[in-house]
Amino acid sequence: MKELMKHYKHKIDLELESFFDARIRKAGEVSPAATEAFEVLKEFSLRGGKRIRPMLTVFSYKGFGGKRESEIIKAALAVELMESFLLIHDDIIDQDELRRGYLTVHKIYENRLRKKHGAGICRRLSHYGDSVAIVIGDIASVLGSEAILSTDFPVRRKLRAVEKFNRVIINTCFGQILDINSENEKAMTEEDILTIHTLKTAIYTIEGPLHIGAILAGASQRNLEQLTRFAIPLGKAFQLNDDILGMFGAQERIGKPVGSDIKEGKKTLLILKALEHANSGQKRAISQSLGNRSLSRAGIERVRKIVKDTGSLDYSRRLMLDYIRQARLALDRIRMRKEGKHFLAAVADYIVNREK
Amino acid sequence: MKELMKHYKHKIDLELESFFDARIRKAGEVSPAATEAFEVLKEFSLRGGKRIRPMLTVFSYKGFGGKRESEIIKAALAVELMESFLLIHDDIIDQDELRRGYLTVHKIYENRLRKKHGAGICRRLSHYGDSVAIVIGDIASVLGSEAILSTDFPVRRKLRAVEKFNRVIINTCFGQILDINSENEKAMTEEDILTIHTLKTAIYTIEGPLHIGAILAGASQRNLEQLTRFAIPLGKAFQLNDDILGMFGAQERIGKPVGSDIKEGKKTLLILKALEHANSGQKRAISQSLGNRSLSRAGIERVRKIVKDTGSLDYSRRLMLDYIRQARLALDRIRMRKEGKHFLAAVADYIVNREK
Repeated sequence: MKELMKHYKHKIDLELESFFDARIRKAGEVSPAATEAFEVLKEFSLRGGKRIRPMLTVFSYKGFGGKRESEIIKAALAVELMESFLLIHDDIIDQDELRRGYLTVHKIYENRLRKKHGAGICRRLSHYGDSVAIVIGDIASVLGSEAILSTDFPVRRKLRAVEKFNRVIINTCFGQILDINSENEKAMTEEDILTIHTLKTAIYTIEGPLHIGAILAGASQRNLEQLTRFAIPLGKAFQLNDDILGMFGAQERIGKPVGSDIKEGKKTLLILKALEHANSGQKRAISQSLGNRSLSRAGIERVRKIVKDTGSLDYSRRLMLDYIRQARLALDRIRMRKEGKHFLAAVADYIVNREK
Repeated sequence: MKELMKHYKHKIDLELESFFDARIRKAGEVSPAATEAFEVLKEFSLRGGKRIRPMLTVFSYKGFGGKRESEIIKAALAVELMESFLLIHDDIIDQDELRRGYLTVHKIYENRLRKKHGAGICRRLSHYGDSVAIVIGDIASVLGSEAILSTDFPVRRKLRAVEKFNRVIINTCFGQILDINSENEKAMTEEDILTIHTLKTAIYTIEGPLHIGAILAGASQRNLEQLTRFAIPLGKAFQLNDDILGMFGAQERIGKPVGSDIKEGKKTLLILKALEHANSGQKRAISQSLGNRSLSRAGIERVRKIVKDTGSLDYSRRLMLDYIRQARLALDRIRMRKEGKHFLAAVADYIVNREK
């Protein structure tokens, strides 16, 4: 599996490179700023990332009998480009400075202007960075459907794939709005949180990529529904695991500062369930810690302990394993070729066992 | 012409309403916040606006022999939805509070949160408004291609129309980046400004809408090239006239505060040419006024007088008339039906004579 993933990541990255290189050349006719925009997008899209989304597209396509590997890899770029689009805007919204260890797009542009003009215009600098990054994200937003349209799959399939692609973006955006609102929402329920997981993770990371591959292979509506029954629980499990790693994983493994979810005040199911079973002292400790960006190491440790002691960690873990079980059962019932099925089963395993 | 425009504006608005109503109903299944997002988008898209862009699509389609009026109106929504998408992001970038006399989307959401939580969290409020508005714009970004794909034109034409639609967005975004950069650019040339006009106005407002209509009617590549030769000069003329009205038009007619281009520090050709021919006193007066948001009425009047006295107003006017002449010549050479040609000629007239 590891070898296979490495192999496809390499292929996808090569295709991404040539996708951008063609556009960088053409943008040169318009203006140096246009070239620069595509160069930033290229660098941003190629840094890190495991390319699981595009691989899901590739293996779903193969699972439903698709034979044209180089063409499906071109189409699979769509889901990676969607990722760049949404992450660039997400980073503005979260005011993050780093993404995959390098500067976020708004910070790249902010710094360029600072170098040009000095630091005397700080607020303007940050607004400038946000402004250009909004527009760079907008450019990326249409590149995904361009990737699908540029393949030579049958036109009707391409059309359906673009329609699906659009629906995935809209659902992810709904999830994003709910997520933004949740910061100001006191009465979040478990259902609210799981709705966000469905929209922002399950549809976006698993179902959408699988459907796009299946559609391009000519799969039936029934096939798509079977994929959904696998994808949605798997995606929810993925997010629950992400939250657990975010709170309990070690920094060097998860690649972001320990306890950053707590510092950002993210309302995860871990926090919700802990609050539900916490005593008044524990509740106070959590509320004081959530969203406190200068929370100490000991403060983080205290929240972790409460999440464990209230049984909340166990609850999320059990829920995750239950979703994985549902996903595996659903996978058994999908009629698809071994090559695709094995890959999907391996992805399900990976999600339970991954450490980052 | 006026009657015709009123007639089509009405038809387009009805179609926009039903486009959004269908989505509002479906979004109800996801979450109240999703419904709300589409309601905001609907209200924003339906306020004011003359619907010239979608009408260009409709009449270009008819001009190249298209017969299915109700279907082309559905497709023409795409260019109106693109407008909503780009304006929502544009308003965040320009930090504008009003659009067509009502609150911008980021202000709508900012105010909602203020009502809920009081004004104690001012900076957070404005970042919240910007964040949700970024995402609402992102939702709108895919609605345009949804509008085209949902029609029952031949699949190949629909795909070509979506490809064109995507290219228009990318070019407009390039223009937007150049425009944002221009605020921090001291050495803007006439060519730089005209490049922005081509990307942000000519391609976006005229060429794109015309091409989409023509493609859906099955027009040839040669037809598209002929349209381009008409559209690009006309679009540049449109922008030059817009700048003239922005500086010299009366508030009640142009619908925005007098001199707002000066206060925002917009680097128009009017300003560039005035600086080129100004004496040192006049230069100083312009630099002190540009970007000064509390500039007095007398200050605005002084800049206006310099733009006139240096011959800059005449220069822009002559250039505009020259572009209109080029556009009319190009229009004569296009082989298209009378109905379409008359409308395009009327649009060219309108652009020279409009007062807002």
